[in-house]
Amino acid sequence: MGSAQQIRRKPGRPGKEYAPYLEAAWGFKNHWYPALFSDELPEGSLRGVMIAGHEIALRRAKGKVYALADQCAHRGVKISARQMCLNDEHLTCWYHGFCYGLEDGVLKTIVGSPKDPIIGKVRIRTYPLEERSGIIFVFVGDPDYRPLPSLSADLPIPITDDPNPTPHLLEEGLFVRGIHALARSNWRLGAENAFDPGHVLIHWDNAIVAATDSFIPLGFHPTSPEAVKIIDLPDGPKGIMNMYNTGAYELVTENLVAGIKSRGSNHHYLRTSFYLPGCLLVEHWPLTGLAIYGWYVPTDDQHHEYWDVVIGRYNSEAERKNLDFKYEKMFKPLHFEDFYSNDIFAREAMQRYYARQDGWSREQLCELDSGIVTWRKLASRYNRGIQAPPDWAAPRD
Amino acid sequence: MGSAQQIRRKPGRPGKEYAPYLEAAWGFKNHWYPALFSDELPEGSLRGVMIAGHEIALRRAKGKVYALADQCAHRGVKISARQMCLNDEHLTCWYHGFCYGLEDGVLKTIVGSPKDPIIGKVRIRTYPLEERSGIIFVFVGDPDYRPLPSLSADLPIPITDDPNPTPHLLEEGLFVRGIHALARSNWRLGAENAFDPGHVLIHWDNAIVAATDSFIPLGFHPTSPEAVKIIDLPDGPKGIMNMYNTGAYELVTENLVAGIKSRGSNHHYLRTSFYLPGCLLVEHWPLTGLAIYGWYVPTDDQHHEYWDVVIGRYNSEAERKNLDFKYEKMFKPLHFEDFYSNDIFAREAMQRYYARQDGWSREQLCELDSGIVTWRKLASRYNRGIQAPPDWAAPRD
Amino acid sequence: MGSAQQIRRKPGRPGKEYAPYLEAAWGFKNHWYPALFSDELPEGSLRGVMIAGHEIALRRAKGKVYALADQCAHRGVKISARQMCLNDEHLTCWYHGFCYGLEDGVLKTIVGSPKDPIIGKVRIRTYPLEERSGIIFVFVGDPDYRPLPSLSADLPIPITDDPNPTPHLLEEGLFVRGIHALARSNWRLGAENAFDPGHVLIHWDNAIVAATDSFIPLGFHPTSPEAVKIIDLPDGPKGIMNMYNTGAYELVTENLVAGIKSRGSNHHYLRTSFYLPGCLLVEHWPLTGLAIYGWYVPTDDQHHEYWDVVIGRYNSEAERKNLDFKYEKMFKPLHFEDFYSNDIFAREAMQRYYARQDGWSREQLCELDSGIVTWRKLASRYNRGIQAPPDWAAPRD
Repeated sequence: MGSAQQIRRKPGRPGKEYAPYLEAAWGFKNHWYPALFSDELPEGSLRGVMIAGHEIALRRAKGKVYALADQCAHRGVKISARQMCLNDEHLTCWYHGFCYGLEDGVLKTIVGSPKDPIIGKVRIRTYPLEERSGIIFVFVGDPDYRPLPSLSADLPIPITDDPNPTPHLLEEGLFVRGIHALARSNWRLGAENAFDPGHVLIHWDNAIVAATDSFIPLGFHPTSPEAVKIIDLPDGPKGIMNMYNTGAYELVTENLVAGIKSRGSNHHYLRTSFYLPGCLLVEHWPLTGLAIYGWYVPTDDQHHEYWDVVIGRYNSEAERKNLDFKYEKMFKPLHFEDFYSNDIFAREAMQRYYARQDGWSREQLCELDSGIVTWRKLASRYNRGIQAPPDWAAPRD
Repeated sequence: MGSAQQIRRKPGRPGKEYAPYLEAAWGFKNHWYPALFSDELPEGSLRGVMIAGHEIALRRAKGKVYALADQCAHRGVKISARQMCLNDEHLTCWYHGFCYGLEDGVLKTIVGSPKDPIIGKVRIRTYPLEERSGIIFVFVGDPDYRPLPSLSADLPIPITDDPNPTPHLLEEGLFVRGIHALARSNWRLGAENAFDPGHVLIHWDNAIVAATDSFIPLGFHPTSPEAVKIIDLPDGPKGIMNMYNTGAYELVTENLVAGIKSRGSNHHYLRTSFYLPGCLLVEHWPLTGLAIYGWYVPTDDQHHEYWDVVIGRYNSEAERKNLDFKYEKMFKPLHFEDFYSNDIFAREAMQRYYARQDGWSREQLCELDSGIVTWRKLASRYNRGIQAPPDWAAPRD
Repeated sequence: MGSAQQIRRKPGRPGKEYAPYLEAAWGFKNHWYPALFSDELPEGSLRGVMIAGHEIALRRAKGKVYALADQCAHRGVKISARQMCLNDEHLTCWYHGFCYGLEDGVLKTIVGSPKDPIIGKVRIRTYPLEERSGIIFVFVGDPDYRPLPSLSADLPIPITDDPNPTPHLLEEGLFVRGIHALARSNWRLGAENAFDPGHVLIHWDNAIVAATDSFIPLGFHPTSPEAVKIIDLPDGPKGIMNMYNTGAYELVTENLVAGIKSRGSNHHYLRTSFYLPGCLLVEHWPLTGLAIYGWYVPTDDQHHEYWDVVIGRYNSEAERKNLDFKYEKMFKPLHFEDFYSNDIFAREAMQRYYARQDGWSREQLCELDSGIVTWRKLASRYNRGIQAPPDWAAPRD
């Protein structure tokens, strides 16, 4: 039973230009992904995360963070399920006391069997890690992938075409606060919603828009190929940028057939861009001078961990306190909770169609989606590999 | 491990006489089904239902109700998931503002992309609809099924062989109140329980029976082929009627081996009949002069939406108020809640056996089930088609 | 993505010596299993249990307990779902009143159809049953398995090599109290955790250990083949015994590499043994003179019902009252709840690895696991058959 019908068929099969993207249900591998905020992993503690099907244990010892496979080689339990931190050199399994070296993952001893012949002969894998601006990033993919790309190659470009540029995440001394949580949709649906110029309709009545009387267009009509700019620096970031403020887009402010008009009198400059492996930048949002960084980190093929982080510069303790105040009393309730909940609702609403009905080949894209198509092609071309499903998710034979 | 064993095998394979019925896990198509009570869909509102695997959005605009496919052609979200009713001509998707004509399902505009070339070229399907006696009925099946059968052909026959006949649902000016809700069993198990003469045992100790001191037999022993009457009017209703009051059934009032006797001193005339695609009529229940209409509407292959509705005539506002009083204080708590909960319990108890262990070929029917077998054969012969599973439920290749 | 890597490969495929054990996901058949405590089934009552995929209805009538298949032959409902006990001779189905003889399972009457031709021709299966020391045991397996083994053959041996031997469950007049509940892991992971000498680490900080200042070693290093004794009496129990107190094990009390030392000053004699089909004995625990019996009863392939029972002798009502006091105020909160919750946590933590990633072939056993390997071989050799999955769990074709 086909509930949606196209009166005239488009020639050709959709999706051929971005076939690798369609295969990336578990994400792209050999990229840097955020795992935890630094303050979520205090000294001596242990936490587990799942990224693109990899279960990873993160432990901080003597200030340094280590990432190892979160599964004991002995009987397969999740090591992070219970904290058993006996010393600063090992990741110790709580069940039988298998102790793995934090640096190399090699089995160093077994608590109850110190003469065991398998000591030194068993290893769990380790992951490259960087902690920057209060966020712990892990490089997830093939154990032997070399050379290791720089973290900056998987983040937005520094902004240079703006008289008042928003900061870059890797600058020192930034204000950085935000959230991350699990959404029940594939990461690609999260990513596409993030920079979709047509999704503004779900925000037109949100509290932050109403409270600030912000003007929100109904949509953006691309009028030239420059509407979406491609960023593909050698050994640097690969992404797309919606050039909302260049004349390459015509703003839609009224639709007479539908009977709806844009609201709000405060016109506000902002711009969105999106980078491999799945990082959003919104310049000058929620307020001028600040920026939002968002990530859509694959968890498994049906879930992603979304990150929504605000960054800003401050020159004094008073300015920092003011940003904290704004975060607690405005950004968090109005942006990270109310505004953002509409995005999550939309992504989860798409999930059933894409997962169960192969929406990827049946969707009916329109002009509003030209940026999404550009992203799919770019991601198909520049990703560093397609993550295969983990063995526990593969069909058993 | 066969837990039930038959000491002597019956020859032949059961179910051959009603093979189409056994295939109708998703219901019969090209029939009229109740979708909502009229008062559940106020002016301007939007609600989604699922019938036989079809997801259907119902919207009332300028008093009229429309039924369309509940899935946006763009990115597949459920349109009824959020109300975005901008005008009286469209069904508008809340995500990107795709606006479909209520009459024809054609895409009329996109809120943020009013010049989009796909406007007018994409369509979602519409469903025939009738609103009668406070109930919205939808014709579910093939989009091109013609001629459209009348609603009355999918309802019980008018009663003519009774000096005090109960009313027919399509009469004007009736009292109509009731409930509908989801049960976790296939619709056929709901239907069969509805008119099963052997299921009286689950009601023998119910509050409405105890309170009215009603006589309930332990069972009905058919003594002639006239016990179950077949109704098969040309272009009209197809159903079966249990002729409890004709002498074709012997009432069982005591079972000495089990040690149980019928209770209750008030003997009360009633009769049950059952019609395609799944509509029960109980004449003179819960009180003489009233009738119960029940439906067992397929949702998916493991759930059905059951309807339980009481109808009656009244000649004055005082009589109508009295029926309201009886409904609120007697029928609803004692029949629709207490009495009926036993039926739902029984249907859900059968589900596991029929779904997981192929109860359809392993069940051990007995004489009490002759009406059920007659229904299965009649439904196999007169249904207007077997509903195929929706694409999202079919095995993926 | 293999998260655990072995630096040097072991020759040969693991598990070949105990292949039957690896196939016994649904347990071993033709063995005695505990089903309920006697006081859970009062006179006239009915309860359902699932053991190794068999759904079994237990009913007590005139003091005697009967076990029959818990599924009506008519339309497959679970008979124990509602109590419909009309007399002391039948198991009566609550739906249509099918009455099965408690002794033979034969259909004796149908409440509403006493002349039905299928009466006497349909049968549900019955199970052998023994009620001893306040526990109802059922023999689960093939209907025609003969001769019926004695219950004592599936219980621990009586202890004879101890000057102060703990009692045996089949002795008369014992104190017997305990718990049973469902755990979300395969029964084999429950069983192996039960007597695993390496799992002491999860108990080293438990309240009962801290409160009694008990010495707990970090592990046990087997120094001779006599560390694990095999028990294989002809027609009697088959099991293994950890000979902790014979010098065949060296106690590990410190691990310098990990930086952990044993705590506690009270050295306490105890011993663990484990018997087919899955029965643990811990002598002299939680206090000297008492014993723990544990069972790990397969429910389905992903769950087991664990039993944890303390038994003891008493010579006077004052001694019995004292045992009751100890049970309520010490054993129950500190052993059956706090201490035991760590075992259940560990078993459930293994489940995912063994079920989804075939831990059985990928686990990396060490010296601590020599008792487990011995058990697997013994169980493979002496079990009375491998339980096949029930029809409802088998893949449908």
